[in-house]
Order: sequence, then structure tokens, then C-alpha cells
Amino acid sequence: MTVERAPVSGSGKRPGRRPGKTVSRQVILSVAMKRFAEVGYEGVSLRSIAREAQVDPALVRHFFASKEGLFEAVMRDAFHPEDFAVVVEGGEERMGERLVAGFLEMWETQPSRDKLLSVLRSAVTRDAAANMVRSFIVGEVLAPITRAIGRPHPQARAALVGTQLVGVALARYVVKTQPLPTMRLDAVVQVIAPSIQRFLTGDLPDVFDETA
Amino acid sequence: MTVERAPVSGSGKRPGRRPGKTVSRQVILSVAMKRFAEVGYEGVSLRSIAREAQVDPALVRHFFASKEGLFEAVMRDAFHPEDFAVVVEGGEERMGERLVAGFLEMWETQPSRDKLLSVLRSAVTRDAAANMVRSFIVGEVLAPITRAIGRPHPQARAALVGTQLVGVALARYVVKTQPLPTMRLDAVVQVIAPSIQRFLTGDLPDVFDETA
Repeated sequence: MTVERAPVSGSGKRPGRRPGKTVSRQVILSVAMKRFAEVGYEGVSLRSIAREAQVDPALVRHFFASKEGLFEAVMRDAFHPEDFAVVVEGGEERMGERLVAGFLEMWETQPSRDKLLSVLRSAVTRDAAANMVRSFIVGEVLAPITRAIGRPHPQARAALVGTQLVGVALARYVVKTQPLPTMRLDAVVQVIAPSIQRFLTGDLPDVFDETA
Repeated sequence: MTVERAPVSGSGKRPGRRPGKTVSRQVILSVAMKRFAEVGYEGVSLRSIAREAQVDPALVRHFFASKEGLFEAVMRDAFHPEDFAVVVEGGEERMGERLVAGFLEMWETQPSRDKLLSVLRSAVTRDAAANMVRSFIVGEVLAPITRAIGRPHPQARAALVGTQLVGVALARYVVKTQPLPTMRLDAVVQVIAPSIQRFLTGDLPDVFDETA
């Protein structure tokens, strides 16, 4: 599934740029993010989001096509999968470190954390969002990395990396399991990185059926 | 916090044992488990649980004292912390394997999985349950293990173990990240155990402030 991108407002003049399509798209996105977090994926309708964003429902459809498209845009806005290219580019040796650092840095600032939390909560409560979050995080954030590394079982490696990253994010930012929330970010990275590195590039037991 | 235990109905004759206090306690517990999962910790009242369990509210107070006490009993019923003694008893070498196997085995059967999910969902949505779940899992399930091992930073080790265990449970049983849900249990254990073993007994970077 692809998401229709809003046309970039071309002139680029700022400050004082007048509200235009890009701004409407951002307003819709942040209303959607808030509503998904509050009532879950299933409780949200495009119509209710349009109402709260004070735009015409047709504009929501223009930008995002469907509720699925809107949720995908929220995930993309939260995770910025393109930022993870640096994990692969720096070579194998400290890949685990770069991946966990990049992932946790997204969580460190409040607006970004709210977006990630909104997506994560949608996935953990029992609704259709779980499928979309899973295939987005594994498929678009992690699998490109494990495929680029070129070791056997890239899909399984991506899934395993995901288990440790989500667990750390929950402990540090949501459930607040001490000492994780109060540790320095680089300390958390140091402790977690070897597990990620092993999932990314280590020899894993020969227990996977899939060959993809 | 301690939970008032229901008096064991002494005679032990079965089958055909008449419903008694033990049965009422179990009925209240399973109603509570279902309600916590449906509406979250804050949405539940002792009175509403009594109504649904068709018992007097005084009986709920007799068994569980408070809503906190009831939630703790639900957690205890889901996690059976006493079962984790075997992790320590078998010596250090394959501790990671025994811990992850014991933890995942709890999730493998449906009634038990529903209980664990109920607790986990209460913790991830934003309410007071998160604190209770965290201190229960880390304090009563994992910290006794890391303290018994006698390595530095038992609290941090327990928290780290928790991040990986919760992440795997989410991936295998909730968000269903392939190939984790379809792998044999012992294969998952083999892949995850080295991370758990490192958190339990390995040399960790010297990045923790706490000395407890």
C-alpha cells in the first residue's frame, strides 16, 4: 500500500508562509494520531477526524485515500523509516549500537514520543491496527536492514530485533521499569546493543523454516 | 502489599464438591480478569465485579480488600511467581533457557494466555495498572531470580530480562510477528536464551548507578 503524499508547498518561503495544503495535511495527521491513541484504530472514522480537524472529509480522502492510508501515514510520521538507512551504511561492526540508538532517539523527545506511543497502543489493544503496525515496523523499518546485511533468515532477524526494541521502549518510556527510564541514553544503548547485534549479524541456531 | 488468601475448603473431596468460598473466589477472579481486560484498571469497580460475579460486594472485600488487592491477585493468578524458583535451582549454566522457556510456556495455553494478556493490556494503556504490573513482574517474578544469582545490579538485570521477555511475548502471542508465532516453542527458546543469559549472569557495561 502506498500513501498519497501531499504536494510540497513549493515556494518554501518562511516564516510567514500561509497555511496551505501541507499545513492541512499535518493538522489532519496530528488529529488522527491523537484520536487513534484515544479510542484505538477501530473507534476512528475519517469523518470524525475531518470534523475535528475542521476540514472537508473529501480533503482527508484526497491526502490519505482510506483509514488504512491515514494510519499508515501516522506510522510513517512516527517512525521515519528512511532515517534508518544509516544503520546499514556504517558497516557491520557497530550496527546493533546504531540501530538501538536511532530507535531510542526517536522516543527521547516528547512530540515524537506521543506519536510512537499512539501507534504502539493501537497495536497492543486488540484491533486491526496490530497487523498494520507489525508489517510496517518489521517490513518497512527492520527488514530492509536485515535484507541489506545479507545473512540467512532476514525476516526472522528483523522480527527478533523488533522484540528487543519494543521491549526496551516499553520499559523506558511506557511502563517505566527502573533503572531504564533514568539511565543515560548511551548507557541503555551499550547494554542493549549486543543483543541487537547478535540478532542482526550473529550465527543463530538453525531453527527457522522460512528461507526468504 | 499482601493479598488475603481465600481459606482452602478443607475436606478436599471431589468431584461433586459443593460450591464454597474457594469457588466464589475463583469466580470473582475470573470476572475481574475479564473486566480489567475489557475496560482497563480504572474502568473497573469492586461493586461492578460483585454484581457480575453474583456475589455480595462484602465478599469481594473479604477476599481481596481493595481494587489493588484484586488486581494483584489477578497478576498472581496469571504469573505464578512461585513457579520461577526452578530457574535458580538448576544452576547458572542454562538459566536463560529455563527462564524464557518457563515464561513462554505460561503463554502457550489459552486460559493462561488470556490472563496474561489481560494484565499486559492493562499495563500498556495509560492507567495506574502499569505501576502495579511493573513492580509485580520485576519485583516478584524477576528480581528474586537476579538477587539469588548474586551478580552486581540485580534490579537492572531483572528490568533488562523483562524487556526481552515482554517483547517476545508481544511478538509471538499479541502482534504476531512472523516467524515467531509459528516457530516451535523450543526454537524460540534457543534463539532468545543467549540474550536472557547475558542479562542474568553476563558482564554488563559499567553504566548503572544503583548498587542495590
